[in-house]
Parts: sequence; structure tokens; C-alpha cells
Amino acid sequence: MTSHTFLPNVAKWGVQEIICPGKSDGNPFQDYEIRGIFTSPQEQKEVTGFYDGNGQYVVRFMPSFEGHYTYQISGSFSQETFAGGFDVPPAEPRVHGPVQVADTFHFAYADGTRYMPVGTTCYVWHLQTDAIFASTLHTLAASPFNKIRFCVFPKHYDYNHNEPAAYPFEPAAPGSEGRWDFSRYCPEYFRHLEKAVIRLGEIGIEADIIILHPYDRWGFSQMTREEDIRYFRYLACRLGAFRNVWWSLANEYDILAHKSAEDWEAYGLTLKAYDPYQHLISIHNCIPFYDHTRPWITHCCIQRQQLHLTTELTDTWRKQFGKPVIVDEMGYEGDIQHGWGNLTGEEITRRFWEATVRGGYGGHGETYLNEQKILWWSHGDVLHGHSPARLAFLRDFLESLPAPMMRLDGSWDEMVATQEGWQGDAAPFYLYYYSFMRPSFRDFQLPEGAAYRVTVLDTWNMTKEDRGIHTGQVRVVLPARCYMAVYLEKVDAHQQEE
Amino acid sequence: MTSHTFLPNVAKWGVQEIICPGKSDGNPFQDYEIRGIFTSPQEQKEVTGFYDGNGQYVVRFMPSFEGHYTYQISGSFSQETFAGGFDVPPAEPRVHGPVQVADTFHFAYADGTRYMPVGTTCYVWHLQTDAIFASTLHTLAASPFNKIRFCVFPKHYDYNHNEPAAYPFEPAAPGSEGRWDFSRYCPEYFRHLEKAVIRLGEIGIEADIIILHPYDRWGFSQMTREEDIRYFRYLACRLGAFRNVWWSLANEYDILAHKSAEDWEAYGLTLKAYDPYQHLISIHNCIPFYDHTRPWITHCCIQRQQLHLTTELTDTWRKQFGKPVIVDEMGYEGDIQHGWGNLTGEEITRRFWEATVRGGYGGHGETYLNEQKILWWSHGDVLHGHSPARLAFLRDFLESLPAPMMRLDGSWDEMVATQEGWQGDAAPFYLYYYSFMRPSFRDFQLPEGAAYRVTVLDTWNMTKEDRGIHTGQVRVVLPARCYMAVYLEKVDAHQQEE
Repeated sequence: MTSHTFLPNVAKWGVQEIICPGKSDGNPFQDYEIRGIFTSPQEQKEVTGFYDGNGQYVVRFMPSFEGHYTYQISGSFSQETFAGGFDVPPAEPRVHGPVQVADTFHFAYADGTRYMPVGTTCYVWHLQTDAIFASTLHTLAASPFNKIRFCVFPKHYDYNHNEPAAYPFEPAAPGSEGRWDFSRYCPEYFRHLEKAVIRLGEIGIEADIIILHPYDRWGFSQMTREEDIRYFRYLACRLGAFRNVWWSLANEYDILAHKSAEDWEAYGLTLKAYDPYQHLISIHNCIPFYDHTRPWITHCCIQRQQLHLTTELTDTWRKQFGKPVIVDEMGYEGDIQHGWGNLTGEEITRRFWEATVRGGYGGHGETYLNEQKILWWSHGDVLHGHSPARLAFLRDFLESLPAPMMRLDGSWDEMVATQEGWQGDAAPFYLYYYSFMRPSFRDFQLPEGAAYRVTVLDTWNMTKEDRGIHTGQVRVVLPARCYMAVYLEKVDAHQQEE
Repeated sequence: MTSHTFLPNVAKWGVQEIICPGKSDGNPFQDYEIRGIFTSPQEQKEVTGFYDGNGQYVVRFMPSFEGHYTYQISGSFSQETFAGGFDVPPAEPRVHGPVQVADTFHFAYADGTRYMPVGTTCYVWHLQTDAIFASTLHTLAASPFNKIRFCVFPKHYDYNHNEPAAYPFEPAAPGSEGRWDFSRYCPEYFRHLEKAVIRLGEIGIEADIIILHPYDRWGFSQMTREEDIRYFRYLACRLGAFRNVWWSLANEYDILAHKSAEDWEAYGLTLKAYDPYQHLISIHNCIPFYDHTRPWITHCCIQRQQLHLTTELTDTWRKQFGKPVIVDEMGYEGDIQHGWGNLTGEEITRRFWEATVRGGYGGHGETYLNEQKILWWSHGDVLHGHSPARLAFLRDFLESLPAPMMRLDGSWDEMVATQEGWQGDAAPFYLYYYSFMRPSFRDFQLPEGAAYRVTVLDTWNMTKEDRGIHTGQVRVVLPARCYMAVYLEKVDAHQQEE
């Protein structure tokens, strides 16, 4: 048996990587295939591997259970079958497994820990210098963000006209048509992408990977359906075993004029077929939404469609699609010329809270001009804005809640949320958000027979003020500032006596 | 001939008041009538008068032309006919006549001077103390406002539970049903209302008179249709001759549960029949609009229907109704508990500019809590807010324009206005408004063959900055603040050379 390499120990939700030698004649990327079957007492999974250059074939596997696993690797890449076993100790600290949909409109890690996305966008941060790659990770580690949207391919757009250090495909053979050979990947390019995914995972950040996008001068957005499908499969096989991967079929799918609905359906099903872990899948719009009710779409990744109504429609979209709603593009904090990228920190923070009290989630981005022409939304590096600190306050608040939220009908001039799915009176909590309004006070009629602790939140100044435990009718005096919220939390009899 | 009184000289658009003695038996308010015919070389008008108590009948007339007028007064109030003549010298300084619709979507005084409404609301300012009556007029005289909405009847609502000093109707006769005799007006009450209208006229402010409203604990909102019609007629005959009168059938007509569409139609037609000057007529909504296409309605007096979209719909409403749009209730600057009354000065100013660039007009109100519990929106007195100074800046800018505005389609992230009705390239001016967005610059492609002077407006800090004359492509650097606008004014060849 020719030698192959594997890891003798892989923590639960870690990555087992098995590297096997194989054929290198012809075009190994498309002429040969490699598969592995992984077996433990609790699961058996068949996964497809990929060619990684230099005559090496790789199968990656993410164990979902502790204990002993065995594997068998075979395929046309080699006459041989490779087999062995490895141990899976408990998950590393702070590792909770891949994120999945929970409670219809929300998310949880595989171990049941709730996941409340507070995402950001840095489209091609991984294609900048090593220094920016490092500083972006450093910034993210100290930020409130637990998800980042970024592209596989390089990006051509305002403030981003530099050439990437490497390309995802080999140049076309001399004399053949086109610039690239879309059937031959550059393994190094994808290893770098993986490095980004892995580093993000280490700091607890989900990698929302944008597979296609229209901001392209190289032709990567204009492959044929066959080429695209091969590329989607390659990504699923290379990256699927990383627990923090999310799939985004495209950014602004509707701007990709060469793709049809049939194409997108085929790409979604390709991911479903080759991703053994069934990571989250979305598709992001410019103007018209894709039909988010399609079964392969797990959640709505939304760019707001109107200038004046953005996350205020979150609860409408929840009803329309019956899935979690993340308004990943609500506009960005910044000061560039474009209206989507010159919002105040106050407005971004307000839009996040509007999404939140309507039972959904927001997404951040930052586009401040600077002398270095390094804009977070495209390049990463460091944050300059005022919203991230407020999003940290929001995330802390969200994670302190006993359950995720849904919108309740309240008065016309307040947004009211309560525990997802709660029916009847005396919910465990109520959250009232006043957005751009500035009440000096509000009167509350608390549910009969229940006592509530009243907390006044200043979502901009990031303060929480305990106003004591109340029953019946209560007037809450407020500071007549924008962006205030009132949180009512039910307390039991014991707490009432305190 | 019994003596009657009249004025020997009445300036054009002033008020001739002819007082005649007549019968006082029975109920003169409804048993007798008085009419006058006024004749000059340019016009002849028949007007109905009213009973003013103490056996006196009054006919008022507003001459629309200079020169000599004759009159004949007759009716069932007296066996006699009263006749005479008077001279009409030119209008007093700053008097331009009544406001009428002009250019379909705008307004002009009778002498053709453009009128750009910048209105406010003080529902019952005239029913407060004499001191507040005086201070309100003093405040208005120094304010940007050239229109005020207020009610005929007293108001019962939050922050306004005091009893008025007088009532519009006589108490019911002992033993009869109800508290009031709706067939007998208190002339003093209406004389006080007239004093308010006259004082407003003296300082150049249009009196937008709200005839019915639902905030009522006295029963004035629940008269029968017959009683209402008599009351509308009485108002038309008493007040119609004042040039600065506008009729508002109701505030929040849809909350007046006792009135039907047939009632409102009858009231609108009553005003048309008894107001010889055909003053402007509107009807104001709480939620659903009245059908503003009705022929007796001259313009749309709108309360915004949604929390998040307000004056952003101005151009939509223009198209829908084909008439001038005044968003008289877009929400108020203040800090009371209600969402309609706790907006920032910034937001009110922004909503005014949104209305403006979409070819319509805004309306102001102010609801700041204070120890005296005197809120401008209800009582008048003094202004506390930050928007009035900005509305003065807006009004100055509007009055500097060569023509009123309509919206042009621009980029999705800017609101663009140009001269009303302009077709084709190279309009006399363009106004770009950036609202809550903060561009650091914007690029403009100026119409070919024309030069434009570029002015940068900071609508909040109230500055205008001349950026010179340009042709072709021009980049306008902006300060990356909210509420900026760019005004492009076409200049002729001579100016270009300067």
C-alpha cells in the first residue's frame, strides 16, 4: 500500500484531512475522482474529495460525534484503497459545531447553543497583503462580529481595482480560446482561501462564502453552467468539512446577466449533493429577491430593496418566506459617494435594532474614505466607524435573552418583540424599541398576575438602567433621546420579594 | 331709510363691512337672511351676510379690483333696501390677495405673486389667554411660517383639557334637549375668531381654518347634517371676505364617526355655494385619505399614513390626485409620549426637504413638554424647537427660485428636482438633495452646451457655498454630513465670462 497521511486525533467538529497519492496524467481535476466513507458507531458518511495538485488527492471529513472512526478511501484516482482509523476526542473549547436553522426563524450551533448572527462584510479581505490579512483577523477578533461575508473570486469595483496576488484558475494553454482554463484550479489560491476560513473559525467567526459575483474583469462570472457546477462541487469538497462555512451562491445574483434561474437551481442542488454537512445556503439580491422559498435555501440573505424602508420590512419577509431573515446589506456606515455606503453609525445601529425587534438579524459593512484607500467593506484591515461598539452592545443584549425574538403587534409608534412563538399573556419578556422617536415617557399595562423588571436601554449610549420590579400600570420616564428601548423581564415571586 | 354703516374706502382685497339694522324676533340666525350685490366696472358679486346679534345684520365683501363699487343690500331681515358706494384704492403694501392654486401643483396669490406654503399648526391658540394670543402672534411674525392650521371649536385632548373662555353656541333653552342650541351662534365667539384671522392677515399668514374636529367633549362634533350645513354657511358668510382664509373641512375627518361621505360632500358644496371668493378647500385625514380628486377639493392636506415613509410619498400623491400636496401633518418636533409628537428638528427639517424636492410642501408642529404645559401645537405661545430656523432657510431658498419645483427621476440615492413642467435638457435649475446620506462627493454630468453655477447647501447648518460656474463633468466635494443639497443654476454667457 502506498503511503497516505491522516491525523490520528481530530476533535469533534474538527477536520480530518487524508492525503493520498494518485494519478497525475491528463487533467486530474476532472479526469479522476476520490471518495471516502467514514464510519463511527453514531454515523456513516460518504464524502467526495478533490485533487490538490502535485499528484495529491485529499479527502476531508468533519466528525460530528466523539469516539473512534474508521475510513476507506477509494476512487479512480488510484488502483489502491486506503483505509485506517482515528480517534475523535471532545470538541475544543468554544467549538459548538456548524450553525443550522433553529426555531424556524433563528439559528443554533450543532450542540444546541444559540447563534445570533451579527455579521459584517469584507468582500476580498483575504486577497489583500499579508499585513492586511493579519490585521483584519486582529480587528475581527476584538469586534462584535460573528460572521463575515466574503468572495472566493477577486473583485473589480470602485475602490478596488488592484490585481490579486494569485488567480483561482490556471492560464489557458497557448493557442486555446480564452484567458483561463476553467477546468484546472490553482490549489494555492484555494489553500489561501481555506487559511482564511480556518483563521476565522479559530476566532469564532462564521465564513459566509460568496461563490459568484458580478464585479469581475477576469471572466470568472461568465463560466458555462458546466464549468460553474464543477467549481461549486470543488468548493463543496474542499471547504465543506470546515464547520464555520456558509454558502452564498452569489452576491447580487440578479446582476449576473449570464445566469438563469435554471443555473442557480443547478448550483444549489450541487452544493446539497456534495456538502455532506448541509451547511447553510443563501443567495443574495441586488433588486429582486430570489425565491427564498426554494427548498435548498436555508435562510434569506437580503439586500434592502428601497432607500427609505430597509430592516423595517424584516417581519414582512419572515412571513413571506417562512425562514430566518438576515438583512446582510442594509446599507453601510461610511461616507463614499454611493447612497448604500454613506450612512451614519446611528442609522446603521437603528437598522440593526429594527431587524432585531422584528425577529430577524442585520449585517454590517463600513465604507469610510481614507488616504490609504483601504475600505473595510472591500479590504478589511481596521474599523473606523461608530456602529461596531453599538453592535457589541446589541449582541451582548441578544445573548442575555432567554430565547430569540419575534415581533408582536404593539402601538403604531413602537416596535414590540417577545419570545419567539410565545402565545398568550405574560410572556417571559417584552422589548419595546422607539427608534428615531423621542418619548419623554411611555405608559405600560403589564400583564395581570405577573411582575416585570423594567430596564431602560440606551442603544446608542450603550447604557442599561434598572428601573425596578413593577406590576399593573407603570409609567417609564425616558430621556427624550432617540434610540431608546424598554425591556420588561418577568420575575418570579421570590425575586419580587427582594 | 334706516341708517346703516359702511366704509367709504376699502383697499383692494380688504374687507367692506356693511352693518344694517333688522328684525330680532324669533331666531334671526335662521329665520331671516341678508344679501348684498356689489358692482364695479370689472366685477359683480352677490354675497350672503349673517346675523351678528343685537338686531344687526352684516354683509362683508372683498373687492378684487380697484375703482368705485356700488352695493345693494336686501333680504327678509328688513323691509328696506340699503344701497351706496365706496372707493377701492390699491392694495395695501404686502397684500397680494387670496391664495389660489397655480401651475396645477402649486400656489399663487391673486396678483400672481408665488406663494410657497411653510405652515404650522396651533389648534386652539386663539382660545387661550389674551397674553398667549398676543405672544403667539408675536412668535409667528418672527417665524418662517406663512400659514397656520387652527380650529373653530375648542379642543379636548392630551395636554388640552382646559375649558374655553367662551362657546360658539348659546346654551339650550331650559327644558329642551341637549346642552346647546345649535341654531343660535354666539357672535362674540366668532368675532374673536375673526380677530385671529385679521391679526394673522396683518402679518402675512394664511388662516387654514379647521371647521370640524373629533377632539370634543362638548358635542360640537355631533351636530346633525342640517346643523352642520347651517354652521358651514355661517362661517362662509362671516369669514369668506377675509383674503387669508383657507377652509379645512375637518381634522382627521375619518375619526368623526358620525359623519358620512354624503355629509362631507354636502359641506364642501355648502362652502362652494356661500364663499363668493372660492377660497382653498381641503379635508385632512387620520388614516385613509378622503378622495382628494373630488372637484370641490383644491389641494391635498395630508397626514402621513405610515411611521417610516412620510413626505417621501409626496410625488406619489401628486400623481395620484393631480393637485397640490401639503403634508400638513408629517409628525411634529417634540418629546411627548406619542410617536407623532417626538421627532427631532433634524427629522422634521429632512421631511420638509423631501416634500419640497418632490414638488410638494410640508407642515410644521411642535410638541415639547414644559412646566407650563403650553405646547405650540395646541396652545401657541413661543417656539422651543430647532426646525423653525431651518424652515426659514428653506423658505428663503424656495422664494429665491425662479419657479416652483417638480421631482425628476435621478439616481436611486438622490432626490432631484427641477422647474415645474420643464421638459428636455438644460433646465433653468436642478436641486439634488441627499437627505440622511453623507456623500463625500458627487459627480455631475451637466447638460451639453449649458453652464451652471454650483451652490452647496447645508440645510441643517443653514449655509450656502458658491462653488463657481461649471460645464460638462464636475465633481462636487461635500462635507460627508447629512442633510446636504447641491443646487445647479443655469447661467447665461455673460455671467460665464465674469
